[in-house]
Amino acid sequence: MEIVKTKVAIIGSGPAGLLLGQLLYKAGIDHVIIEQRSAEYVASRIRAGILEQVSVDLLEQAGVDQNLKANGLPHSGIEILTNGKKQRVDLSLLTKGKQVTVYGQTEVTKDLIQAREHAELISFYEAEQVQVDDFYSKPKVTFHYQGKDYQIECDFIAGCDGYHGVCRASVPEDKIKTFEKVYPFGWLGVLADVPPVADELIYVQSERGFALCSMRSETRSRYYLQVPLTDHVEDWSDERFWEELKRRLDPESREKLVTGGSIEKSIAPLRSFVTEPMRFGQLFLAGDAAHIVPPTGAKGLNLAASDIAYLSSALIEYYLDGSEQGINEYSEKCLQRVWKAERFSWWMTHLLHRFETESEFDHKIKQAELSYILSSHAGQTTLAENYVGLPY
Amino acid sequence: MEIVKTKVAIIGSGPAGLLLGQLLYKAGIDHVIIEQRSAEYVASRIRAGILEQVSVDLLEQAGVDQNLKANGLPHSGIEILTNGKKQRVDLSLLTKGKQVTVYGQTEVTKDLIQAREHAELISFYEAEQVQVDDFYSKPKVTFHYQGKDYQIECDFIAGCDGYHGVCRASVPEDKIKTFEKVYPFGWLGVLADVPPVADELIYVQSERGFALCSMRSETRSRYYLQVPLTDHVEDWSDERFWEELKRRLDPESREKLVTGGSIEKSIAPLRSFVTEPMRFGQLFLAGDAAHIVPPTGAKGLNLAASDIAYLSSALIEYYLDGSEQGINEYSEKCLQRVWKAERFSWWMTHLLHRFETESEFDHKIKQAELSYILSSHAGQTTLAENYVGLPY
Repeated sequence: MEIVKTKVAIIGSGPAGLLLGQLLYKAGIDHVIIEQRSAEYVASRIRAGILEQVSVDLLEQAGVDQNLKANGLPHSGIEILTNGKKQRVDLSLLTKGKQVTVYGQTEVTKDLIQAREHAELISFYEAEQVQVDDFYSKPKVTFHYQGKDYQIECDFIAGCDGYHGVCRASVPEDKIKTFEKVYPFGWLGVLADVPPVADELIYVQSERGFALCSMRSETRSRYYLQVPLTDHVEDWSDERFWEELKRRLDPESREKLVTGGSIEKSIAPLRSFVTEPMRFGQLFLAGDAAHIVPPTGAKGLNLAASDIAYLSSALIEYYLDGSEQGINEYSEKCLQRVWKAERFSWWMTHLLHRFETESEFDHKIKQAELSYILSSHAGQTTLAENYVGLPY
Repeated sequence: MEIVKTKVAIIGSGPAGLLLGQLLYKAGIDHVIIEQRSAEYVASRIRAGILEQVSVDLLEQAGVDQNLKANGLPHSGIEILTNGKKQRVDLSLLTKGKQVTVYGQTEVTKDLIQAREHAELISFYEAEQVQVDDFYSKPKVTFHYQGKDYQIECDFIAGCDGYHGVCRASVPEDKIKTFEKVYPFGWLGVLADVPPVADELIYVQSERGFALCSMRSETRSRYYLQVPLTDHVEDWSDERFWEELKRRLDPESREKLVTGGSIEKSIAPLRSFVTEPMRFGQLFLAGDAAHIVPPTGAKGLNLAASDIAYLSSALIEYYLDGSEQGINEYSEKCLQRVWKAERFSWWMTHLLHRFETESEFDHKIKQAELSYILSSHAGQTTLAENYVGLPY
């Protein structure tokens, strides 16, 4: 059995774990990352693509923003298409200059892995039988790696291992409370190397269901369709996808849309999920391990980043200033922001999707809400300030 | 059979019908009012008590604002009590000077009846077997009054006869669409001659359910409790009512609360209801005949007033300028405002009441929404601008 001693054991090498590692490294705090998958697998997952300004700032602070600065697309507005008409929400105007940046999570992960390799930091990829133990006293992480058994002895464990990870699953049932909502539809996503239909994202509410015109770069588009959960990817040829997308668009966008072969196609279910608290002794949960949002509003990656902002500064405070305040406040601070983002994501999902079960009254109320929001400066501002990200 | 010829037959002598009559009278347009109840019954009904500025302006325009000006209480804010803490929403600050006026609907009705008597305008009170006919060609209203059969021949019928009235019920089924939502609770209201607990209204969200501390004057209070629909007024002694109200209040308000014998006590169910369209040939529906809102947010009387604002100017335009534009646009204009008020009333009801069926996730989302709204200037503004009334 190999024994490794470190200050922080980070479970999971997604953007949350990698970013935490990078910020701890910059502060000179010893840590390791343990990940069950391979680095290639982690780096190739297709996920979100919209960064809040606070997330961009954090990546800058971590020193991994060179590619982001070079290739990220700053967006100062979004379009909402409802009742066949597009209306622009001027994010920057409404939030005194804030904006979002289009930059794929895949790219963020790659940048972080590259920085980690460059700094020669320790990561155990393809670790097997990962277990976290004794986090109410002296935390241990055990796993099997390249034919050997390992035990990490550490002060803290950061559970950045996602919704299906071992960290949350290791918390005694009586110490944890979870809140959940599942939605009766999924998002069928297509990635294609075609120029985006518009310079900004178009969120589409239509009688045929929700659609989203998004992008990863000026030559790579990401489109989504609301589909029943019973649908399979095989049901959706590229032709059928483009046909259905066109039907949900306005005539102008329909005309402009450039179609092409998909380079990725998948159906993702939508889920809202929150864990309370987010700290259990010396174990902290962060990112998807603690909470899931439906993708409408693009809060998932940004919430992971804000957890890491709180956690990294709490740990830095602990090691450099000897203060436990940050770690003691971690859970409450995170959850305040988490619930607001959950609220916003639920609200955008609710407002823009077609629910088979909604009554005609409910549907009219939604139309009235959209109409009110888009016609009121204050209403638009509530959308904009949540979309660009509430302050930490 | 007595034949009466007039331009407009108004069915219903509630605030909507009376206000329309008064505005038509001021413009010199011939009309009559037909009401099934007695004037005393109509004038004694206890209803809402909050007027938007646009409603106050309309009453001024109708020349019936002397008592309102003398006795109405201008309110520039409301309090929201949630999680045991009160927070003031400064309506005037948030809406550039707008406010609401506390003045009972009972008083509005009395003022309008008095003005009508003073002008010696024709009202048929206690009319029996009221029927509206031929409103797609030559409108007729028939009824039995003081032992005689009457027939009113008119150009237009204004259906201001409330939710249970004959006007909406007379529309052929294939010409009308209705939208409805019922809520699984009611409001138990108590009127008492005690000074209000606070200068402004307190909207209370608590684990025990919603409560509202309202008033009619500086010496008359109106309090409400959310109660199950299965409760009866007889279940609620005055003592039990005050006891339960105190439990839902914060310590400061609990201490300040002055209790006393109730002079009225009743349980009202909550309902959202909308009729589309609001015009059928020469028949116009206005007020509760066309739409109902739950009382949260106090939009019922104000919506009736805005319908009458549109209808009176449409009729004046028709008779004085010979233009049909106003009457042709009546339904659409009303419904735009109606749906926004329905949305707001539903939203306030949803947010502040306890629903037995809501999941823990839904409850947390509501708390997050309240917390967001109260912490954001834009969020507070959306509440304030709807509360004081969206512009016509």
